[in-house]
Amino acid sequence: MKEQLMKMLEEREDEIIQIRRYLHEHPELSFKEEKTAQYIADFYEGKDVDIQTNVGNGYGIIVTIKGGKPGKTIGLRADFDALPIHEEADVPFKSNNEGVMHACGHDGHTAYLLVLADCLIQLKSKLAGTIKIIHQHAEEVPPGGAKSIVESGLLNDVDAVYGIHLFPTNPAGDVGYRSGFAMAGRSYFKLKIQGIGGHGSSPHLANDTIVAGAHFVTSIQTIVSRRLNPFDMGVITIGSFDGKGQFNVIKDSVELEGDVRYMTSEIQQLMEKEIHRIVRGIEEEFDVTCELDYVPDYPPLYNDPEITAGVITAIENSTEPEIKAMTEFPMFSGSEDFAYYALRFPSCFFYIGCKPKGVEKPYFNHHPRWDIDEDALLVAAKAVAEVVCSNQQ
Amino acid sequence: MKEQLMKMLEEREDEIIQIRRYLHEHPELSFKEEKTAQYIADFYEGKDVDIQTNVGNGYGIIVTIKGGKPGKTIGLRADFDALPIHEEADVPFKSNNEGVMHACGHDGHTAYLLVLADCLIQLKSKLAGTIKIIHQHAEEVPPGGAKSIVESGLLNDVDAVYGIHLFPTNPAGDVGYRSGFAMAGRSYFKLKIQGIGGHGSSPHLANDTIVAGAHFVTSIQTIVSRRLNPFDMGVITIGSFDGKGQFNVIKDSVELEGDVRYMTSEIQQLMEKEIHRIVRGIEEEFDVTCELDYVPDYPPLYNDPEITAGVITAIENSTEPEIKAMTEFPMFSGSEDFAYYALRFPSCFFYIGCKPKGVEKPYFNHHPRWDIDEDALLVAAKAVAEVVCSNQQ
Amino acid sequence: MKEQLMKMLEEREDEIIQIRRYLHEHPELSFKEEKTAQYIADFYEGKDVDIQTNVGNGYGIIVTIKGGKPGKTIGLRADFDALPIHEEADVPFKSNNEGVMHACGHDGHTAYLLVLADCLIQLKSKLAGTIKIIHQHAEEVPPGGAKSIVESGLLNDVDAVYGIHLFPTNPAGDVGYRSGFAMAGRSYFKLKIQGIGGHGSSPHLANDTIVAGAHFVTSIQTIVSRRLNPFDMGVITIGSFDGKGQFNVIKDSVELEGDVRYMTSEIQQLMEKEIHRIVRGIEEEFDVTCELDYVPDYPPLYNDPEITAGVITAIENSTEPEIKAMTEFPMFSGSEDFAYYALRFPSCFFYIGCKPKGVEKPYFNHHPRWDIDEDALLVAAKAVAEVVCSNQQ
Amino acid sequence: MKEQLMKMLEEREDEIIQIRRYLHEHPELSFKEEKTAQYIADFYEGKDVDIQTNVGNGYGIIVTIKGGKPGKTIGLRADFDALPIHEEADVPFKSNNEGVMHACGHDGHTAYLLVLADCLIQLKSKLAGTIKIIHQHAEEVPPGGAKSIVESGLLNDVDAVYGIHLFPTNPAGDVGYRSGFAMAGRSYFKLKIQGIGGHGSSPHLANDTIVAGAHFVTSIQTIVSRRLNPFDMGVITIGSFDGKGQFNVIKDSVELEGDVRYMTSEIQQLMEKEIHRIVRGIEEEFDVTCELDYVPDYPPLYNDPEITAGVITAIENSTEPEIKAMTEFPMFSGSEDFAYYALRFPSCFFYIGCKPKGVEKPYFNHHPRWDIDEDALLVAAKAVAEVVCSNQQ
Repeated sequence: MKEQLMKMLEEREDEIIQIRRYLHEHPELSFKEEKTAQYIADFYEGKDVDIQTNVGNGYGIIVTIKGGKPGKTIGLRADFDALPIHEEADVPFKSNNEGVMHACGHDGHTAYLLVLADCLIQLKSKLAGTIKIIHQHAEEVPPGGAKSIVESGLLNDVDAVYGIHLFPTNPAGDVGYRSGFAMAGRSYFKLKIQGIGGHGSSPHLANDTIVAGAHFVTSIQTIVSRRLNPFDMGVITIGSFDGKGQFNVIKDSVELEGDVRYMTSEIQQLMEKEIHRIVRGIEEEFDVTCELDYVPDYPPLYNDPEITAGVITAIENSTEPEIKAMTEFPMFSGSEDFAYYALRFPSCFFYIGCKPKGVEKPYFNHHPRWDIDEDALLVAAKAVAEVVCSNQQ
Repeated sequence: MKEQLMKMLEEREDEIIQIRRYLHEHPELSFKEEKTAQYIADFYEGKDVDIQTNVGNGYGIIVTIKGGKPGKTIGLRADFDALPIHEEADVPFKSNNEGVMHACGHDGHTAYLLVLADCLIQLKSKLAGTIKIIHQHAEEVPPGGAKSIVESGLLNDVDAVYGIHLFPTNPAGDVGYRSGFAMAGRSYFKLKIQGIGGHGSSPHLANDTIVAGAHFVTSIQTIVSRRLNPFDMGVITIGSFDGKGQFNVIKDSVELEGDVRYMTSEIQQLMEKEIHRIVRGIEEEFDVTCELDYVPDYPPLYNDPEITAGVITAIENSTEPEIKAMTEFPMFSGSEDFAYYALRFPSCFFYIGCKPKGVEKPYFNHHPRWDIDEDALLVAAKAVAEVVCSNQQ
Repeated sequence: MKEQLMKMLEEREDEIIQIRRYLHEHPELSFKEEKTAQYIADFYEGKDVDIQTNVGNGYGIIVTIKGGKPGKTIGLRADFDALPIHEEADVPFKSNNEGVMHACGHDGHTAYLLVLADCLIQLKSKLAGTIKIIHQHAEEVPPGGAKSIVESGLLNDVDAVYGIHLFPTNPAGDVGYRSGFAMAGRSYFKLKIQGIGGHGSSPHLANDTIVAGAHFVTSIQTIVSRRLNPFDMGVITIGSFDGKGQFNVIKDSVELEGDVRYMTSEIQQLMEKEIHRIVRGIEEEFDVTCELDYVPDYPPLYNDPEITAGVITAIENSTEPEIKAMTEFPMFSGSEDFAYYALRFPSCFFYIGCKPKGVEKPYFNHHPRWDIDEDALLVAAKAVAEVVCSNQQ
Repeated sequence: MKEQLMKMLEEREDEIIQIRRYLHEHPELSFKEEKTAQYIADFYEGKDVDIQTNVGNGYGIIVTIKGGKPGKTIGLRADFDALPIHEEADVPFKSNNEGVMHACGHDGHTAYLLVLADCLIQLKSKLAGTIKIIHQHAEEVPPGGAKSIVESGLLNDVDAVYGIHLFPTNPAGDVGYRSGFAMAGRSYFKLKIQGIGGHGSSPHLANDTIVAGAHFVTSIQTIVSRRLNPFDMGVITIGSFDGKGQFNVIKDSVELEGDVRYMTSEIQQLMEKEIHRIVRGIEEEFDVTCELDYVPDYPPLYNDPEITAGVITAIENSTEPEIKAMTEFPMFSGSEDFAYYALRFPSCFFYIGCKPKGVEKPYFNHHPRWDIDEDALLVAAKAVAEVVCSNQQ
């Protein structure tokens, strides 16, 4: 079956590229991917599969391909939302939805998976087990789509979930993996500090929240520098210090917003506890009232070592000429809601190199000039096909 | 002459009140007091005096009353601009210029001085010396009107300048003075800190200006706490910390604005120097680029001790029943552009109690519910009349 | 009587100088002035006065001179302790008590008062009222001698207390005064921060008190910069940060000591409260345990305005050629336990210029090279004599 | 040969333990290990090997065992210095050198290596290649002995160097490894801040170095929290803040000492640069003069992946019953001067579990109650013997 599948994919490479370009030209924001979801549903129209739309908290779609023979049930996931970015890349299929752009490769993820799914449908009778194609909405914006899809229960019977991401550090042909913790978890917090406003010349009659906020920012640094194990990964960024006011008026309140990253949930808990502690200290020290809203969102992404070992073997043993290398990738401080699948099922999320040819320093994901080498799409399709086939035994 | 002058003022008390109410109902913002200036000019229409309009950088007016006998030349100053405040006081003559309010008593200052000037014009032949009535625009907003009026040269021949301010700490009848430094000088500064933006999860690739700004705020406290003589007065307020951004994006630049207060120009110079020093230190420490724009505006107000002693004697010896007490007032951390007259000429700026009857905690100047006891207006007129007469000998 | 008294003082100027030099050569530390007290007691030996020794918590001496006529009871106070300073001044009567030095002029205070007291004893019959000569021990070291002398009750009947201090800013002949608050009050505090020690490479297993202490020091600055009225005087100095340790071991505890100054007890209370608040905040923020020991000692020194006005009149009207000027002095941030007399009785503490002749920048009190113009001693005697006489009417 | 060697080691287990106990009872401080070195030299007395004493900057000893057949040259290193710790462990062979203790297992390192060396000498004729036994002095105190031994040139011909460390996290029988960066590098710095002393009540006349030092401590936190890649390891500990003084005297200078840790030399360079930058910033901000003495000492320890892979294979394939498991160990933030061998030669430093039987939470290296399971000594000997034999092919 594998030989046949690979051949089919090769023959449909152009189609994959055309689908990707169509999606690229018609990007939609997270939770608003109505037309994209319709496009996907239309693709499966008339095909002999079970399709469920509007899964989870948005336009999620699950397509169930039941094989002719008994076997494992696995999930293959591709996300399909775009970003609020004004495209600057000079491509003929530039976004025609002004201010929205597929700048993270989700167009490519969806394109390869549609064609791969179609091939698998055609080979259904030879297939052992079941494949659940997960077309996921809203990866970019918390709470994301993954959590609600997991909670829908539609995946309860899967033995493993796989996903990939296009990544421009490596050329097309390179596949990357990371066993264990691979991408950071993330929390968001908002801190409102309430003091007492007043005239700039009379600080004693007021209670200056800019000073209290500044002390919060300097104190919070000690969580990473002194509370974390130096071998653990943790970041706290205060991305917003909203304290704009009149130069000669003491600010009665300021609002800070922050971003917290970590590789394990233990570190998440430690950092959350310490942020609360410092907030209480600032209240006491500066006689202000603080409101802290701390919201963990995507958890750290944990690639199951056994499942990942299977992926490594499958890719390393591949004889497909387009698949050239399998290399270990570093951990990333970015976050992915694929982590929710991995929290519930043994999973592996891996990387497909897509650095444009002839480019030394490619633009990264989320850059307005982001672009890919479309050769990577067939690599993605074949790499995931290898993984599917490795689950056939 | 004094007896006659006082009697005339008493008889015109109602007129003073009417003028004040008219002005209160028709407030205009600093540098935009076109109609107010016209109203004042109209008042002098047909009177036997020399009047100069559009003095200085706005609608300033100088009325010169030449006495029939030789004597000193003195200036009497009243300001006439209003504030960008939505009036909340419940008075029948409420502002009908929405969002603009005479919340600092300048309406009263102008009202008493118009009538006093008119009385003096009528008594001109008996008057020794010359009186220059200074109707000043734009006291509230730097650079103010006073500096440009001084620079016009029209006051070059004065021997002294006097001004008063309505003040609600004391009841009508109380007059207040402060010899030497009486009100604070003020500077404004804007600090732009430029770093490098980036993703919240990768602080090492960016250069976080919120952290640099927070350290600036904590360091700047040491100027007041450690660089000033503890017996000197100095304040630095950071009134604005404009660092609003995305919670997960490292802020590439922040802008802070501050207010500096001091009682002497030595302290001003010290504080300016120290702020520059700390800014240079922050640049070095956090590898950011800083742009500091430091602008001294109103200087400390210095009441000439000799001139002030004359005012004290005149008021203390007054037998007018409306003038009940002459008391020393504390220094104020607020600022006044009368300071520019005082910098150039021996001057005295003093206070007229105006606490509304039956009120224990009056609303202060600049409050939307600010109100006065209108009895204070005759006190103002008579007190300044006493000062004028004391200059007749 | 005044004429006679002044003449007697003039004739005994040399004796005053000799006594001062003897005391200078034999200085003793606070609370250990055994021989000095004996020397003073011996001086009164055989004289017709009541003498009480060992008054208060040390070697205090009170000599009561009962006049022949009715009148007020006044106290005259001179302190007699020396300092733990190695004398570097090049004088023939240098300290022969190694490491101890009369570097604050208390030798001169005692010398003039002994001779003045003796003259008054001789003139006793002509004297109206009673004079209590207060030879006070231990001014330099809290809790000082003054408080205990006041508490002894021996002064309960006095109408006023006077004291002077030699001061090198002005030449001999100048007398200085300050009505109202004249010298700062002072508190001492010790803060022990207890965390958890550990290896420098593993901050997460320890709890670093040097970091917590540093945040305390930066936060404490905001009390002076933001909590005080800018016109009030307040200082907090952390004079000791005892955190010496191994470079690679996280410090388990540090101890800080501080000095607090203020001109009124309201400010004292505010600052104490705020220090407690910040300590509690630091405990919370850094999860450390703090022990704060805050001890107010000498209160602000308040010169009674009426009593001070009497001193001013007495000195200004003096016709003694040695008394040349009476000028207002600034407030001082230093502290004096004379403040305890002033807290209980209407009092005045004033200054006697003693700048050495031909010296432009004199060494200040407490300097190892401190020296005085001995002409100041007769000025002191005569100035206090004037004050005594002004109380005769 | 391996079978014979292992048997010999088994038979001499008691001797290893006796030697370890003797050394434990006679500990000597780094660079002062005169008697220990003599003991080692005596051990080789009369044996057919080349021995060099006083190697490097102390009592280093190199013993060269030339095999009867051609082959690789490898180094085996054991350190022999003790620590300035008062032993509290309750063992019959307690330190009899008061205040000095073998609390880091170097006694065991030396004991097993002496007996292993002796066995190898006896098997010399069968040995392929050369074995250099490195008895190293002074591991505990920078600059350490390793650097100077490398610089002696006596090891220039080695193909690889191996060393082990007893480690109480695991029971006897467990062997641990870490490929690549395994232990942190370390730098020391001393920062002297010079300001101007003065009276606590007059901060404006002084320049407070405790405040400047506190700001240094808070600023330095941002190097770890904001300048490092969150996936990199870095620690800065200020272990000493020497600012003890009088509570009421402004401190004219303070001295801080710090410890810096990192896993790569790039991070070392980054942190050194940033510390210098912050020091310059503090100088500017607080107008103080800083003297920074930054001294990198032990570099990060890098285990050559190929050499380490050889060790892993050798241990994993071992059939010796005492060797029970080979597991990957985490990176450690502690430092080791074995790093100098690894900087110059392909090397591997690995771990021998020594947790006392029946103990759940063992005392760690450098603890006064440190103790080992002596079964670990034969494990060490056999593990290193396996490595030696793996180099025979």
